[in-house]
Amino acid sequence: MKVAKFGGSSLANATQIKKVGEIIKSDPERKFIVVSAPGKRDQADTKMTDLLIQMGDSYINGLQYEDDFLRIMDRFAEITEELNLSNELLNEFESTIKTVLTKDQIITDKLDAIKAIGEDSSAKIVSAYLQSLGLDAHYINPLDAGIIVSDEPGNAQILPGSLAKIYSLHQKDGILVIPGFFGYTEQGKLATFSRGGSDITGSIIAAGVKAELYENFTDVNSVYSVNPNIVENPKEITILTYKEMRELSYAGFSVFHDEALIPVIKEKIPICIKNTNNPDAQGTYIVSEREVKEDECVSGIASDTGFCSLYVSKYLMNREIGFGRKLLGILEDEGISFEHAPSGIDDMSVIIRERNFPPAKEAIVLNRIKEELHADTVSLHRGIAIIMVVGEGLVNTIGVANKAISALAEARVNIEMINQGSSEVSMMFGIQSSDIDRAIKSIYRAYFEKNN
Amino acid sequence: MKVAKFGGSSLANATQIKKVGEIIKSDPERKFIVVSAPGKRDQADTKMTDLLIQMGDSYINGLQYEDDFLRIMDRFAEITEELNLSNELLNEFESTIKTVLTKDQIITDKLDAIKAIGEDSSAKIVSAYLQSLGLDAHYINPLDAGIIVSDEPGNAQILPGSLAKIYSLHQKDGILVIPGFFGYTEQGKLATFSRGGSDITGSIIAAGVKAELYENFTDVNSVYSVNPNIVENPKEITILTYKEMRELSYAGFSVFHDEALIPVIKEKIPICIKNTNNPDAQGTYIVSEREVKEDECVSGIASDTGFCSLYVSKYLMNREIGFGRKLLGILEDEGISFEHAPSGIDDMSVIIRERNFPPAKEAIVLNRIKEELHADTVSLHRGIAIIMVVGEGLVNTIGVANKAISALAEARVNIEMINQGSSEVSMMFGIQSSDIDRAIKSIYRAYFEKNN
Repeated sequence: MKVAKFGGSSLANATQIKKVGEIIKSDPERKFIVVSAPGKRDQADTKMTDLLIQMGDSYINGLQYEDDFLRIMDRFAEITEELNLSNELLNEFESTIKTVLTKDQIITDKLDAIKAIGEDSSAKIVSAYLQSLGLDAHYINPLDAGIIVSDEPGNAQILPGSLAKIYSLHQKDGILVIPGFFGYTEQGKLATFSRGGSDITGSIIAAGVKAELYENFTDVNSVYSVNPNIVENPKEITILTYKEMRELSYAGFSVFHDEALIPVIKEKIPICIKNTNNPDAQGTYIVSEREVKEDECVSGIASDTGFCSLYVSKYLMNREIGFGRKLLGILEDEGISFEHAPSGIDDMSVIIRERNFPPAKEAIVLNRIKEELHADTVSLHRGIAIIMVVGEGLVNTIGVANKAISALAEARVNIEMINQGSSEVSMMFGIQSSDIDRAIKSIYRAYFEKNN
Repeated sequence: MKVAKFGGSSLANATQIKKVGEIIKSDPERKFIVVSAPGKRDQADTKMTDLLIQMGDSYINGLQYEDDFLRIMDRFAEITEELNLSNELLNEFESTIKTVLTKDQIITDKLDAIKAIGEDSSAKIVSAYLQSLGLDAHYINPLDAGIIVSDEPGNAQILPGSLAKIYSLHQKDGILVIPGFFGYTEQGKLATFSRGGSDITGSIIAAGVKAELYENFTDVNSVYSVNPNIVENPKEITILTYKEMRELSYAGFSVFHDEALIPVIKEKIPICIKNTNNPDAQGTYIVSEREVKEDECVSGIASDTGFCSLYVSKYLMNREIGFGRKLLGILEDEGISFEHAPSGIDDMSVIIRERNFPPAKEAIVLNRIKEELHADTVSLHRGIAIIMVVGEGLVNTIGVANKAISALAEARVNIEMINQGSSEVSMMFGIQSSDIDRAIKSIYRAYFEKNN
């Protein structure tokens, strides 16, 4: 039994939804379907969820909202008409939107209720469309599905007891189509997950029903081994472990919301990323464990800019018990969260995302470290980029670090930081942001193109 | 004006002391002389300080001590006779030893008083010998020199106010010979520094008198760029910064007691390590700052065994605020001090000296981390060796990491850990202890022998 989740691009218009119908029809194991709201039809388009938020904000602030309302209804109409679905569906959407906007006594946060309309309508459309294909499909509301969440509008968390209830979905006949992105509190109040939350719903359902596979349909054939904006036609990744995926996500691979996967990871359910537009392509599997071939120890190379490095040195630092703790305490005090804190003997560097270290705090923090910790030197270097070389085979392969570091030397890139060995599946490099494309191209060549 | 400190091997017998006399005589700038106790005359010999401790322990425990007493007096007699010094000196030593051993009302810790006899006698011998050469030399007791310390027998610390008093030594005429290793408390009680404490006295005197140079005479021509037991005839280091010396000391270079240098470092006084047996050799200078030639960015390669690595992984660790702090808190709780704690995204490694992590604690600590932090994996790897590649030029030299890492790959050494960039003057590698000789030889070749 599989859970198949379809993202916004797979539901953007009737043509896409027809592909979704084909995919579901082609495999009777696809019993649990989770859907996003309609996404962009082309680059210039606006996602349904953004239209809904815009309309909701305007309404709440007493501004003109009718144009957005018409745009929303037009999009729904375009879809239902092309799919030859009954007008009742469209009337239902219209009345839902009007109720949510105008009803004052509603217990749910108004914006949450508005946002959820996108996914909810998508699920109703897909369910009706599957029925029109002769399939035994049913729309299931998240409340009926058992998705019980905490009372945090826009950031709801699944409650631990929910999964057992969800398992009982097995008792229902046919294909069940469930809207993503929201659940209900124990008081029956609708609450949405954080943005991208349809992945969360898919993951919860997959874990709850103990699916054999969680299929995540999107608009790419697979996860690429490197950013395709930097390297042309990069190698497709066929299999990754959860850990590899996590490390790649950290440095810019936007495959998934990390938190979204916790439920499936706990249950060790394999995930498959597939392309709605090319469902025969193999896709990328994300699994708990995998076999590693010796000459393919690296799976992917991720990179991200926007880091800075805080450098502190003090003679005999390593004899001073608690120095590191005090240093990190000052950062915590000032509300600055950090990424890593590698230390030397008398030196320590703290890697921080630049967005978490506002320039206004710079002088304060540097001064506090100097004064309170009697540091010899304190300095901040901005404009750092991080490269993550990720692979399950890294830890025991001789010479694997050598390839990346030789590649950086060949590309004349100065390495500001190497952090290897703290993770068993990755090596981390810090370089100047301006060198990032050259660096990534050279490392990619070393692992994926050279015959060595 | 220079401070010259002579170590135990430079004072082991009359022949050595004659060399010391020549050295002092040859340079009128050598006004302040600090001496250790007589050291070993050959490999099988016992240091004077060890004889004194042995005798003192025996006396305190009511055991036979007379043989040691005779051995001690014999060594002093051999020295004074060969130097043609008066018998009065020998009688003075004998009466000092007897007084210290038998006097019950002495306020000083008895063992401290016994240990100090070695250095004190050395200073009296050297002073008398210099006088016999016609030099205006004077023995100065540490109390008169102004070395006022905390009341911690065997681990005395210089008191902050002392340095100003020491500066007034300039008012005394002639060459001043000061015993190393001990000072006096404000109550006039003798107290010794930690072992190797003659370096501490030398450093305090150099800082106090604001010397131009602190000369440290020992039995090697210089500091070597790598352990000569691993690499034959390694390159001699002519100049090092304090920071480089510190990093090399951390991983096995036993040049100096780290704490010993704090006073000279604060005053930025250059240090020179010289050979009593070959005083014309250039020696190694240790300075605050130095010029770095581009092709000589590495100064030395140090290595040390006896480390272990505690590895902890947990999905979404980097989203969990305070995870690292809690982990290190458990170690602190269990009395385990750590060296470094590099972190990945969902992983953290803690590098600990094996002697600080008793096997009896292993199960307790691993279990606490697993239970209290809900870690996914916890493991401990013993038998790790650390290599430090040290040099002021490291931070901005492209390809410098590449050389070491290529060398390790060539030698088929698996790298367990790389920590580069947290220190501006070093790179740290973790490998298996069994690979250490092969690794060091290969890295040495890469930086010091290859024509690249």
